[in-house]
Amino acid sequence: MANNAAANELSDKLASQKLKEEDDQVVNPWTVTAKDGGKIDYDKLIDKFGCQRLDQTLIDRIHRLTGRTPHVFLRRGVFFAHRDLNDILDAYEKGEKFYLYTGRGPSSEALHLGHLVPFMFTKYLQDAFKVPLVIQLTDDEKCMWKNISVEESQRLARENAKDIIACGFDVTRTFIFSDFDYVGGEFYKNMVRIAKCVTYNKVVGIFGFSGEDHIGKISFPPVQAAPSFPNSFPHLFKDKKNLRCLIPCAIDQDPYFRMTRDVAPRLGHHKPALIESSFFPSLQGESGKMSASDPNSAIYVTDTGNIIKKKINKYAFSGGQDSIEKHRELGANLEVDIPFKYLCFFLDDDDELEEIRQKYGKGEMLTGEVKMKLTQVLTEMVERHRFARAAVTDEMVDAFMAVRPLPNMFD
Amino acid sequence: MANNAAANELSDKLASQKLKEEDDQVVNPWTVTAKDGGKIDYDKLIDKFGCQRLDQTLIDRIHRLTGRTPHVFLRRGVFFAHRDLNDILDAYEKGEKFYLYTGRGPSSEALHLGHLVPFMFTKYLQDAFKVPLVIQLTDDEKCMWKNISVEESQRLARENAKDIIACGFDVTRTFIFSDFDYVGGEFYKNMVRIAKCVTYNKVVGIFGFSGEDHIGKISFPPVQAAPSFPNSFPHLFKDKKNLRCLIPCAIDQDPYFRMTRDVAPRLGHHKPALIESSFFPSLQGESGKMSASDPNSAIYVTDTGNIIKKKINKYAFSGGQDSIEKHRELGANLEVDIPFKYLCFFLDDDDELEEIRQKYGKGEMLTGEVKMKLTQVLTEMVERHRFARAAVTDEMVDAFMAVRPLPNMFD
Repeated sequence: MANNAAANELSDKLASQKLKEEDDQVVNPWTVTAKDGGKIDYDKLIDKFGCQRLDQTLIDRIHRLTGRTPHVFLRRGVFFAHRDLNDILDAYEKGEKFYLYTGRGPSSEALHLGHLVPFMFTKYLQDAFKVPLVIQLTDDEKCMWKNISVEESQRLARENAKDIIACGFDVTRTFIFSDFDYVGGEFYKNMVRIAKCVTYNKVVGIFGFSGEDHIGKISFPPVQAAPSFPNSFPHLFKDKKNLRCLIPCAIDQDPYFRMTRDVAPRLGHHKPALIESSFFPSLQGESGKMSASDPNSAIYVTDTGNIIKKKINKYAFSGGQDSIEKHRELGANLEVDIPFKYLCFFLDDDDELEEIRQKYGKGEMLTGEVKMKLTQVLTEMVERHRFARAAVTDEMVDAFMAVRPLPNMFD
Repeated sequence: MANNAAANELSDKLASQKLKEEDDQVVNPWTVTAKDGGKIDYDKLIDKFGCQRLDQTLIDRIHRLTGRTPHVFLRRGVFFAHRDLNDILDAYEKGEKFYLYTGRGPSSEALHLGHLVPFMFTKYLQDAFKVPLVIQLTDDEKCMWKNISVEESQRLARENAKDIIACGFDVTRTFIFSDFDYVGGEFYKNMVRIAKCVTYNKVVGIFGFSGEDHIGKISFPPVQAAPSFPNSFPHLFKDKKNLRCLIPCAIDQDPYFRMTRDVAPRLGHHKPALIESSFFPSLQGESGKMSASDPNSAIYVTDTGNIIKKKINKYAFSGGQDSIEKHRELGANLEVDIPFKYLCFFLDDDDELEEIRQKYGKGEMLTGEVKMKLTQVLTEMVERHRFARAAVTDEMVDAFMAVRPLPNMFD
């Protein structure tokens, strides 16, 4: 235990060192780029950030503790890294619950599939562990980074809340809040306590800010850090000041939580644990995150079946061979094939996926067939989402966002 | 909002704000220092900051517009500089009201006379112009700069609020708030809007922060700027988004409001106007530092008559001559005489002050006599304050700090 803690301490510190020019990949909350448009090397990222690989032992342990089949995103390595997940599970095994914290920067009206990944996974965690969840909508961040007005950021936050609610969260266990609505009181006090512990040089090291950045950016990291501490939510955790926090997120958010973990012991809190995903690839391939500015790089939850079909057929990068003959002979390169990768995210049936892996890899299946399967899977999924979202009323949004105790937190 | 003495307490610790070799004086919210322990040169300060001198024409105009004798602090040049006071008076003359904004950084339990100066003057302005007033208690700032806990900062804010209320403010026109209580909602939105407009390089230029400073310090200037804009207070100024703001403060706060004025037009607000005071000198003289660690450098509102008498007799720096004979011959040097300077602040009667100026200056009065007069004036003033403060109940503090409309704002 002690060794483990010391190792964590060290790795947090190492990871906080500044990203250097000579780095062959840059991953932070604003930039996900590999050199020369190559793929992100997740092993290197784990090394560099100092987090741990989420291995089969841990997945088996989650299976055992929850009595549920681990989520597809666990079985297929979408969530592939963690920090202190062992500690959370140790405590859980002894009967100590925790809470989940995740969030979204509401920068666009329509979400794409990549945006849904953390929420689909968080819903699974909530159901499996039966724990409360706080979801932060960082409308203040987006207002500052994207140069959109306060009012537009708030509108987007509310629109995004509907998509999040449509993922099936339990209103008796879930508190959704926007920073513009919620910052103040105990939350603001924690922002101040956190800010006191972090120098400007430190945030430059972690986030790479420059003197030309406005001070809103420099002020923001404590806003994203504060929900990691239960006393930021007195209406939820008034008598649970030692409650542990588990944060499911994409690994580009790791810098925020390295900073948070550094500060936590000085403020008398547990370090938040993390469970971190890789990035959902764009239709064009795996060199980075999807871009909201190119609608053809992603499939949106607002896309119709026809659009989904067209996007997949036209844009999804194929690892298949140039001719049918060559394909039958060599098979598809699954390492770069986007239709197959997307199926790894969203095709639930392990046997069916394995069959496609085999047949497509050997050339027995053609790209067209795999694309057709993907079109079917995604169309169903997107239609299901759209149906669920249409049922989300303003009253439901108000209910999720009401500052209230959660009646059903740990049952 | 730090004023002079509170700022002095902090100055030693802030390596980043050291007096630069080429500067002969440094005045900012945390440091007030002249080279070689000399006096602050206020003319140079006006030049450097780019504010205007508050001249007799303006004082006469205030007299005419309010129908009241201008406050001693105006007649005697304690408030000596301004920004855009003309604009406020032009608008006022046309029937357009404004609101007052001042504040205090609650760093100590007992206030000294220097702390009362801005509040005594603000009360006069409120009465004379019949305008609403917001008073910000920057408990967040003090928590961050002085390394005291959130809870202790909040306690000090409430204690200080009692002393402020004891200055006689009208509860129907005055809203007192602590940042820890009030930051959030529209106020937080303005903090974000302001922060977006100010780069890190800019705050370094204005405040002299360094990379070793924590990000709480860098985040704070928008907190002090926000009350300058009426939409930070929807419960007060919901329908008065164009209301002008006048800020009475010590001139060490000018940097905050230079920044605020810079930002104001970009956010669609009037630049706040300022009316700025010189610093209240310590008992040891104008080059001496008032410091919390030396209770004999200042007279506190908690000092008894005996303590006041002793402090004045023992510590008040005298401009009188070494021997009675020499004093009768040369008279006192009023430029450095603290008892006389204190009388200039607190002896209301212009004729009596003029008489003392003449007689003491010519050697007809002795230091002992002037000190006796000052003891009498301050004892009365402090006892009056203590009496008023004892009558301030917790219910009254709650009433002033309640988030509410002000029923009597402009009558």
